[in-house]
Amino acid sequence: MSHPHPELGPPPPLPENGLRIVALGGLGEIGRNMAVFEFDGRLLVVDCGVLFPDPEQPGVDLILPDFDYIRGRLDDIEAVVLTHAHEDHIGAVPYLLRERADIPLVGSRLTLGFIESKLTEHRIQPVKAEVVEGDRRRFGPFECEFVAVNHSIPDALAVAIRTPAGIVLHTGDFKMDQLPLDGRLTDLGAFARLGAEGVDLLMSDSTNSEVPGFVPSERTIGPVIDEVFRSAAKRIIVACFASHVHRVQQVFDAAQENGRKVALIGRSMVRNMTVARELGYLKVPPGLLVDSREIEEWPPEDVVLICTGSQGEPMAALSRMANRDHPIRVAEGDTVVLASSLVPGNETAVNKVINGLTRWGARVVHKGNATVHVSGHAAAGELLYVLNLTKPSNFMPVHGEWRHMRAHAKLAALTGVPDDHIVIAEDGVVVDMVDGRARIVGAVQCGYVYVDGSSVGAVTDTALKDRRILGDEGFISVVVVVDSTTGKVTGGPEIYARGSGIETEAFDAVIPLIEAALQDSAADGVADPQQMRRLTRRIVGRWVSDTYRRRPMIIPVVVEV
Amino acid sequence: MSHPHPELGPPPPLPENGLRIVALGGLGEIGRNMAVFEFDGRLLVVDCGVLFPDPEQPGVDLILPDFDYIRGRLDDIEAVVLTHAHEDHIGAVPYLLRERADIPLVGSRLTLGFIESKLTEHRIQPVKAEVVEGDRRRFGPFECEFVAVNHSIPDALAVAIRTPAGIVLHTGDFKMDQLPLDGRLTDLGAFARLGAEGVDLLMSDSTNSEVPGFVPSERTIGPVIDEVFRSAAKRIIVACFASHVHRVQQVFDAAQENGRKVALIGRSMVRNMTVARELGYLKVPPGLLVDSREIEEWPPEDVVLICTGSQGEPMAALSRMANRDHPIRVAEGDTVVLASSLVPGNETAVNKVINGLTRWGARVVHKGNATVHVSGHAAAGELLYVLNLTKPSNFMPVHGEWRHMRAHAKLAALTGVPDDHIVIAEDGVVVDMVDGRARIVGAVQCGYVYVDGSSVGAVTDTALKDRRILGDEGFISVVVVVDSTTGKVTGGPEIYARGSGIETEAFDAVIPLIEAALQDSAADGVADPQQMRRLTRRIVGRWVSDTYRRRPMIIPVVVEV
Repeated sequence: MSHPHPELGPPPPLPENGLRIVALGGLGEIGRNMAVFEFDGRLLVVDCGVLFPDPEQPGVDLILPDFDYIRGRLDDIEAVVLTHAHEDHIGAVPYLLRERADIPLVGSRLTLGFIESKLTEHRIQPVKAEVVEGDRRRFGPFECEFVAVNHSIPDALAVAIRTPAGIVLHTGDFKMDQLPLDGRLTDLGAFARLGAEGVDLLMSDSTNSEVPGFVPSERTIGPVIDEVFRSAAKRIIVACFASHVHRVQQVFDAAQENGRKVALIGRSMVRNMTVARELGYLKVPPGLLVDSREIEEWPPEDVVLICTGSQGEPMAALSRMANRDHPIRVAEGDTVVLASSLVPGNETAVNKVINGLTRWGARVVHKGNATVHVSGHAAAGELLYVLNLTKPSNFMPVHGEWRHMRAHAKLAALTGVPDDHIVIAEDGVVVDMVDGRARIVGAVQCGYVYVDGSSVGAVTDTALKDRRILGDEGFISVVVVVDSTTGKVTGGPEIYARGSGIETEAFDAVIPLIEAALQDSAADGVADPQQMRRLTRRIVGRWVSDTYRRRPMIIPVVVEV
Repeated sequence: MSHPHPELGPPPPLPENGLRIVALGGLGEIGRNMAVFEFDGRLLVVDCGVLFPDPEQPGVDLILPDFDYIRGRLDDIEAVVLTHAHEDHIGAVPYLLRERADIPLVGSRLTLGFIESKLTEHRIQPVKAEVVEGDRRRFGPFECEFVAVNHSIPDALAVAIRTPAGIVLHTGDFKMDQLPLDGRLTDLGAFARLGAEGVDLLMSDSTNSEVPGFVPSERTIGPVIDEVFRSAAKRIIVACFASHVHRVQQVFDAAQENGRKVALIGRSMVRNMTVARELGYLKVPPGLLVDSREIEEWPPEDVVLICTGSQGEPMAALSRMANRDHPIRVAEGDTVVLASSLVPGNETAVNKVINGLTRWGARVVHKGNATVHVSGHAAAGELLYVLNLTKPSNFMPVHGEWRHMRAHAKLAALTGVPDDHIVIAEDGVVVDMVDGRARIVGAVQCGYVYVDGSSVGAVTDTALKDRRILGDEGFISVVVVVDSTTGKVTGGPEIYARGSGIETEAFDAVIPLIEAALQDSAADGVADPQQMRRLTRRIVGRWVSDTYRRRPMIIPVVVEV
């Protein structure tokens, strides 16, 4: 899906005064956002995030953008602009900095605060970081103007990139809360001014392009949380994203109002809220916060726990509470609030958590039964405002799956962008803006780069295919020992299997078949290991298929001694 | 989750004139519905369905109710009442009949039609099958009255079971469409009459108990489908459940209205619609249906394909079309309608199908953007009607996860059922109704029985745990050959791995470590295979963990020759 249009070949050389745009992630998927802009041989990167794996990518921790396209040209990078501090926009920065440590990072104050504390965990000290907001900066040939936008994390930015090829406005992720908690509105005035000047290409967040209408204000959640708190008999547990400063602020306010103490649970929650507090984005009333290790000393009716795990992550505190595998024993009268979105792909896990908590008697409040979450992304109604204000000559939907990009393209067409000025690209597709027109001109290799444990890129699609087979069917291994001098079988066949669902004794039936086949195949008593493996695989495979109608992985091993 | 309350022990003997109820599936989960009623030593079974596996149960085809509780008493079964022909109510019947072939099956005409054609595929000829509707029949001590209910399949029934212990009303799955396409309403008059007589226990469908309000009529879908058909430029593909006769009828009607031919795709779709047509439940205008093998000869604008695969099943036609792995090449101008629910757990798969189809240019219409589906289960507003009409002395929510059973219990309490007359049970929990009171008295073993390929129950939870590890991490196997006479290592260690994401050459680093350890462990040169395995596992495990921060399955093999 996220691979280049199959018919596209390598791109031609970039014409003089042309701007080249290649997304290495985020087009055709929700996550690992990263766009590379090239002008006159120099590069500007916007965002560098991670994607979370789906069930087809078992055992993988994270998926990175494919840096292959820029790997030979890291020194050409003028800067990495980070629009905001969500993982899908900054999560891959540590991996990029491993390849060149002194790439300048550019972003707002909170964004850089979050990324710096993240880099510290990776034991990386960024060499250059530049705080920007509402001003213009030049990075090589790229004149950047940073425009405030509202999102589900404070201090998010859009960026307008001026080169001789024209003005590109990249919105980053945004919404248009007209009553934001911090008063920091999406700067439609700036969008209008850029539109008047002439936006040659608009790249705009497509996440909610299929959602009609408008996203309610974050402010609507406060009274709901307050009401939940008022009616809560015992302990209150609120799960939300570890970066959602305003959501946490609203929980703090409700706790203060209802005379409860608050404990933060989870490393990323504590880390981010410490940064947000230090930088003045989070107001903490004196005496409100207590140490999570002391929380059990307080009566349940006097406390609120704020934790991560709202996506059903099995190792997070919330899942463990649902499974009674956590010191905090959820019980009748407790209230759990899932104050977050439900990220596609996590439905089953979250449902398990809700059922587990409900089983123990907790009341679970979630976006399905109360307004305890509003989206961070502009819906269709709001996207139309941006299209109408910026009046782009060309439009390219970004940050979305195919369904979102197609829906966003339709909105652009409705506002008057001509169909042939709308470019729907996937990861790796090369878009050149030349003489005021954006066009797809080719594609570059852009695969998935898997992080698993401490290795990056070592787990390949082949390994994942093996994992899927092993995970669905298990394996059967057959070991035969051959004397390398005489060529005769001296040991085995021995069979061992895992996950196949076949009992050990059952294999007694196939061993004579293997023995007979191996004997037949080497009439002179001299065996060819290659052929032995082939034969063994065929015989065991057929036996399993006929007897059990299953297809485990079959691994013949010939050891020569 | 679906296992018995941990504190419950084996049940006491059933008192005389007491009725015992044990669900072997369907309580704490959506699927494998099966309830066993016992009176005076005789058994009546209501439904015998399958559950579909979730990602924690990899490679499993189906999950059956655990027949263990009744296995020694199959001859005591008077009948299996099938409330309707959905897989989660009839899917396990072939497996039960394998254990005793002449168990009488009881149900409505279409239900028995569907189950008989299903049994034929399993090469089973049911010995006894009895068509019932709206009448009373006695099965041993169980006097059953069958009451028409409306659902997302025609001809569904509720059943009232009379014994000297009282009247139990089991709703089966139902909704309360007041304008059903076939005019067959849920018989609230019968519910009211039973209520007047005195319902001692109501067992009612909890699936939609969290959904406020009322389910719209199936009739509301027709005009939407018709409008979609009118505006469709090219080919139309409709995916829905293979048993949803009324949904298919509405597609037939819209096709006829719009001058299109229809082809049915998929074995279960063809099988069920043939039965439904033969029994008069599906009206097919002459000349409407064409053979699916001929469908490509017709111009795209003249055809409608009806297929399965609405849940994103990877091998179904629809998924294959989305991946361009099907003779039908979905293209710009085509319209795909997902006229079905989105069963929890299938969100990711369905999203992939929508994105795939959208990528090729199809317009995808689904319940998220048009009213092309209504639920088959009564919502909270409707459940209240049933509670108020039947006025049960005791209430037991059935067919649902914990969240649904708890929500349904709250509705019952609101209508006046006393809290201590509401019984929330899980699979295997034993509920006795004695002297007009239903109470939990114990629990019996009730695990998951997995069907995988042709075997039933052979794949255990241990095998699934192995599969999960193999699927997430792969495995590393180390083979050592030992001379059984001398006890000396004569071959290996040889390492092979799959799915570990570690390159073959990398293992060169660990081989000397294994060799050294094996040497140390057998100072006298005589090795103990048990200890060799233990040592090898430890050394390789530590090496992988330190080097890669991963935990593949490690399988040491010692072959003695």
